[in-house]
Amino acid sequence: MNKRQQPHILVCNDDGIEGEGLHALAAAMKKIGTVTVVAPAEPHSGMSHAMTLGVPLRIRKFFKNSRFFGYTVSGTPVDCIKVALSHILPLKPDLIVSGINYGSNTAINTIYSGTVAAALEGAIQGITSLAFSLTTYENADFTYAAKFARKLAKQVLAEGLPEDTVLSVNIPNVPESAIAGVRVTQQGRSRWKEDAIERNDMYGNPYYWLNGTLQLLDEDIHKDEFAIRSNYVTITPLSCDLTNHSFIGTLEQWKLEK
Amino acid sequence: MNKRQQPHILVCNDDGIEGEGLHALAAAMKKIGTVTVVAPAEPHSGMSHAMTLGVPLRIRKFFKNSRFFGYTVSGTPVDCIKVALSHILPLKPDLIVSGINYGSNTAINTIYSGTVAAALEGAIQGITSLAFSLTTYENADFTYAAKFARKLAKQVLAEGLPEDTVLSVNIPNVPESAIAGVRVTQQGRSRWKEDAIERNDMYGNPYYWLNGTLQLLDEDIHKDEFAIRSNYVTITPLSCDLTNHSFIGTLEQWKLEK
Repeated sequence: MNKRQQPHILVCNDDGIEGEGLHALAAAMKKIGTVTVVAPAEPHSGMSHAMTLGVPLRIRKFFKNSRFFGYTVSGTPVDCIKVALSHILPLKPDLIVSGINYGSNTAINTIYSGTVAAALEGAIQGITSLAFSLTTYENADFTYAAKFARKLAKQVLAEGLPEDTVLSVNIPNVPESAIAGVRVTQQGRSRWKEDAIERNDMYGNPYYWLNGTLQLLDEDIHKDEFAIRSNYVTITPLSCDLTNHSFIGTLEQWKLEK
Repeated sequence: MNKRQQPHILVCNDDGIEGEGLHALAAAMKKIGTVTVVAPAEPHSGMSHAMTLGVPLRIRKFFKNSRFFGYTVSGTPVDCIKVALSHILPLKPDLIVSGINYGSNTAINTIYSGTVAAALEGAIQGITSLAFSLTTYENADFTYAAKFARKLAKQVLAEGLPEDTVLSVNIPNVPESAIAGVRVTQQGRSRWKEDAIERNDMYGNPYYWLNGTLQLLDEDIHKDEFAIRSNYVTITPLSCDLTNHSFIGTLEQWKLEK
């Protein structure tokens, strides 16, 4: 980035171009840089790092109150980053911010999240990237979350991040005065207890909707989901290296023959 | 698992119920256990950990040569595991095996892979899980890969794996005599250099196909993609904890204020 120029910031999300959190985040970023918005044309929650291989993608301009707001891509959050970098932006952006997502991207939801995946895709491409979520689906107020996102983005632009690493930020949906503080956290352990709902269609044939409840497997203030429940903003550094390094030594002791 | 009984093995993949590698893997597993196959009705490469939230799922029986072979689910590999555990299998299986995938699931492809995601979903649900890939798209011969999968599955059933951990196994597409050996590896660093193809439709409007070339960012025999190229079978232990633990300490030194 040219020091005399403003940073160029790419804004994406997984809730789609109409997502309220996307507009709050874009507005916050416009206070510290030049913004390009590239977001999915439709909501894409739970898409993780999926990309579109068998279907062509379309890019369209999106207008808000008759003014150009950004681009839509007819695919997943990761598609948006790939298409933005290869066909929309003339130069690599200085920063990618993804969100602000509805609902927490903590614990095991980290790996289901399209919001996090978009940021990770940015990191894979060598761009400093952040993901933001507001931990609610109802009565969302993005005011404090957008303010915090702006402050953290400035700090990250100054400090930088290690390679292949993003910060996943979760913000409780409470007024600023009720925020307990900011904690650096780890991804908590949890799983969804599946309880897919079975129904019959008009022909008597069953269909299933995925459904379930999140079971928290650790209660530890150093873990994201637990800290969020005490009204902390949590910042979890994530990497795209899935290797379980701690198991390498044991596995090498196994008698593995071709 | 009751010691007197055979292990119950759930077989899944991301190439879909007709995938040649799925049938080779199911046949191999039938030699060591009781097998249930649950696979996507259609190919779902590059779907990562995506799940289907906005559309109901269908379960159908699939027949091969007029004999029942397994179940199809009208969704992603992760949907298959979720639906299998909640609606198809009466008890948790002793083992989940995913594959045998066409094309390597090494380096950054690890996070795009639906094959790996299905196995990780098994681990999240507390089930010992393995992912297998044959590192080719052409002239695939699954003979040795299936044999190795059977041997490793037996070993893993005896030894067990740490929680939230799967083994991702990549097997070169060469005859057994040309296999150099078996290596425990780490996920290599790489990225896809995007080169989305732009075309115009019959109305003159552009559309884009994702395309690119894999750039390897490290050359190290301890990394999966590099070792594969020397004809080693690679076994990379993967975890669903994305936390970059090595950056926690530095990040805690940042002045993070609410």
